[in-house]
Amino acid sequence: MEVTIVGAGLVGCLLACFLARRGHHVTLYERRPDPRERGPHGGRSINLAISERGIDALRRLGLDTKVLRAALPMPGRMMHAPDGTLTFQPYSADRRHAINSIGRAELNKELLDAATALPGVRVRFGHRLTALDERTGRLEFAGGRVHDAQVVIGADGAYSAVRARLQQLPGVSFSQDYLDYGYKELSIPPRDGRFAMDPAALHIWPRGRSMMIALPNADRSFTCTLFWPHESLAALDSPQRIRTYFAEHYPDALGLMPDLVTDYLDNPVGHLVTMRCSPWHVTTGAATVGLVGDAAHAIVPFYGQGANCGFEDCVELDRCLNEAKDDFTKALELFERRKADTDVIARLALDNFVEMRDKVGSRMFLAGKRVEHALERVVPGYVSRYELISFSTTPYAEVERRVARQRRATAGTGAALLALLYALRRASRPRPRD
Amino acid sequence: MEVTIVGAGLVGCLLACFLARRGHHVTLYERRPDPRERGPHGGRSINLAISERGIDALRRLGLDTKVLRAALPMPGRMMHAPDGTLTFQPYSADRRHAINSIGRAELNKELLDAATALPGVRVRFGHRLTALDERTGRLEFAGGRVHDAQVVIGADGAYSAVRARLQQLPGVSFSQDYLDYGYKELSIPPRDGRFAMDPAALHIWPRGRSMMIALPNADRSFTCTLFWPHESLAALDSPQRIRTYFAEHYPDALGLMPDLVTDYLDNPVGHLVTMRCSPWHVTTGAATVGLVGDAAHAIVPFYGQGANCGFEDCVELDRCLNEAKDDFTKALELFERRKADTDVIARLALDNFVEMRDKVGSRMFLAGKRVEHALERVVPGYVSRYELISFSTTPYAEVERRVARQRRATAGTGAALLALLYALRRASRPRPRD
Repeated sequence: MEVTIVGAGLVGCLLACFLARRGHHVTLYERRPDPRERGPHGGRSINLAISERGIDALRRLGLDTKVLRAALPMPGRMMHAPDGTLTFQPYSADRRHAINSIGRAELNKELLDAATALPGVRVRFGHRLTALDERTGRLEFAGGRVHDAQVVIGADGAYSAVRARLQQLPGVSFSQDYLDYGYKELSIPPRDGRFAMDPAALHIWPRGRSMMIALPNADRSFTCTLFWPHESLAALDSPQRIRTYFAEHYPDALGLMPDLVTDYLDNPVGHLVTMRCSPWHVTTGAATVGLVGDAAHAIVPFYGQGANCGFEDCVELDRCLNEAKDDFTKALELFERRKADTDVIARLALDNFVEMRDKVGSRMFLAGKRVEHALERVVPGYVSRYELISFSTTPYAEVERRVARQRRATAGTGAALLALLYALRRASRPRPRD
Repeated sequence: MEVTIVGAGLVGCLLACFLARRGHHVTLYERRPDPRERGPHGGRSINLAISERGIDALRRLGLDTKVLRAALPMPGRMMHAPDGTLTFQPYSADRRHAINSIGRAELNKELLDAATALPGVRVRFGHRLTALDERTGRLEFAGGRVHDAQVVIGADGAYSAVRARLQQLPGVSFSQDYLDYGYKELSIPPRDGRFAMDPAALHIWPRGRSMMIALPNADRSFTCTLFWPHESLAALDSPQRIRTYFAEHYPDALGLMPDLVTDYLDNPVGHLVTMRCSPWHVTTGAATVGLVGDAAHAIVPFYGQGANCGFEDCVELDRCLNEAKDDFTKALELFERRKADTDVIARLALDNFVEMRDKVGSRMFLAGKRVEHALERVVPGYVSRYELISFSTTPYAEVERRVARQRRATAGTGAALLALLYALRRASRPRPRD
């Protein structure tokens, strides 16, 4: 089967690998030039935290080892209090579990290499989609080039051109919800050739209304992202104001950011949006057009699941193709079932923003997390939501059902109390990094 | 001030009247040709039910008398049971209250006449907006015509071209939610020159999964609208199937619809959509672009409030212009407060579909309505939601707060019981039309 994928980003490339393995011929059309022939442009991309769902997808294609070699494991969060106090909080009761920091550009290059190495996959760079006729499958690109397709899959991200066409069809429900918050990318370079902070953690400065995070890079720098309401971000409009604000709220980071002022003034403000669409596919006449990844369900980055969810889409679509015996129309119809899962992670990602911004700094929250990890140790079968989302491939919607069942069960027994006592006992001991 | 309105439909024309009265110069750009020079095209337009909010807006411009003269008052609902039994249910405890049936095309012509009669208002028909630069205020129309504006107001309906541009701006949240239901317009012509049913009612055939309504026209016909899931509407694809279905579910209507089969097969299926957008206005550089009416907040037709709400938008924007001393940027900013109200009516319109489709046929519902009307008579200050929405200009959001207060109050007292007894006593008497 000839399959056309619009977008050769992370999800487009990974999907091409899965489809090529099934024996399909895949053409990827990508708006931008080949990133392997240029440097990254940066300034707009939050680092990715690849966790089990993403790794599982890569593993199925034998790509996990190579990708993880380039990534930095982060087994927990490091909280930075305004007075400089650091508190480390493991993500999992199992100390082997970590999420993995990797740059989007680097991962994209890896996946482009993997896809183009497969027979039957070709990538056309510099092709910006300008029109799509969902009835005939005709794609038009800037400059007047045309391609006729039977199966078109939009993997072209949150601002998908493929989805823009589907949205115009009556019966296609859609929403784009922007947060009042924007983000600004900043940087902590290496110090004397070494990481300026502990690289084995996702660093968080929870400040209530604003929040900064930092993820380690292979070059020993950190990519920082400051989240703040748009009007506040815009109000820091002079070197003096920027320095004063950071000195007051992020004093320990300020000393590590020599390029703060230029980064702040030069880098654009990013937007935080949740996109929902239903259905994700349309079959009219001979052509079928579908959506995957951010094009289908862009989410905010606060659960570190955007790319992981997109990768899991590929696994699920591969499963649907199995069930539909490679009939893409049927497979894309089956794939609609995944919306129950992506709706859940969209909501959790929004909820987690409040948690990261505000609650992770509080003692109650830290105590609660310790209770949760204690429950995981003493109650057979109890697993926390974070654990299930980040360190399992349990479908997102099933995670929520399981969390709800567990809440009812622990509320009904004395387990919570027992776990609390256990946690307090452990907390009073000298605390290793667990 | 020079103001450009895109769309010379109901809301565009009414707004032009309000603005001209304030001394502004208004140019309306309308995609279609002048409807006064052609017949209506029909087949897609549910009749309007103008009630107090719409009448209040017309009254402020001295247009109410003329418009109401062309309308047919409907003081209640007439329910058609499958066995042909008719039950009349007044909309209000006050028998003078009625909603008013009028055709969209007819009302549009009236409002076009009213607007163009005012000094400073001109309408450019046959101008389809193809591009809008919100920074410069430049509008481009099909055929290459260009117009430069400082203030642009999109009154161009649910599928607004002005909003399509705003949606592309980061930070503009938007949603379009389609119901699984579509609708098909049908007709009951006059019989021997007279109305085939009682014209002093909105007729409803509640059938659970499907529903039909009929509103009287000045020419003594009724416009019927059948609501049904899309796949069901599509499944009736032969004269035989159409007749069999209507004979089973709408037997009393079937006899009144000589053109049923051709109407059903020829008329297109309409879609039911709720559109939300936030913000409704954008000011970048010198230009301000805003939205009103369906362009800002299209709703489903089940509370009969779409046009009424759009007309009330004009009253509110007029009020905002008073407060802002005719600074349109400030006025459109103030006008954002109306979203609290339009969100409420959007939700109520969706909720009312279930009520109309299903509950209006049940005894419990009818008894409940009688209790409600009785409460309005015996409890000082008690007013039902329907009464407040349709027969008052209390802001929609305030209606919901008041309904919630009343529920708490009546639940806390014996008033409900007293009213019930009163209602039962009245119900046992021969029932006049009240």
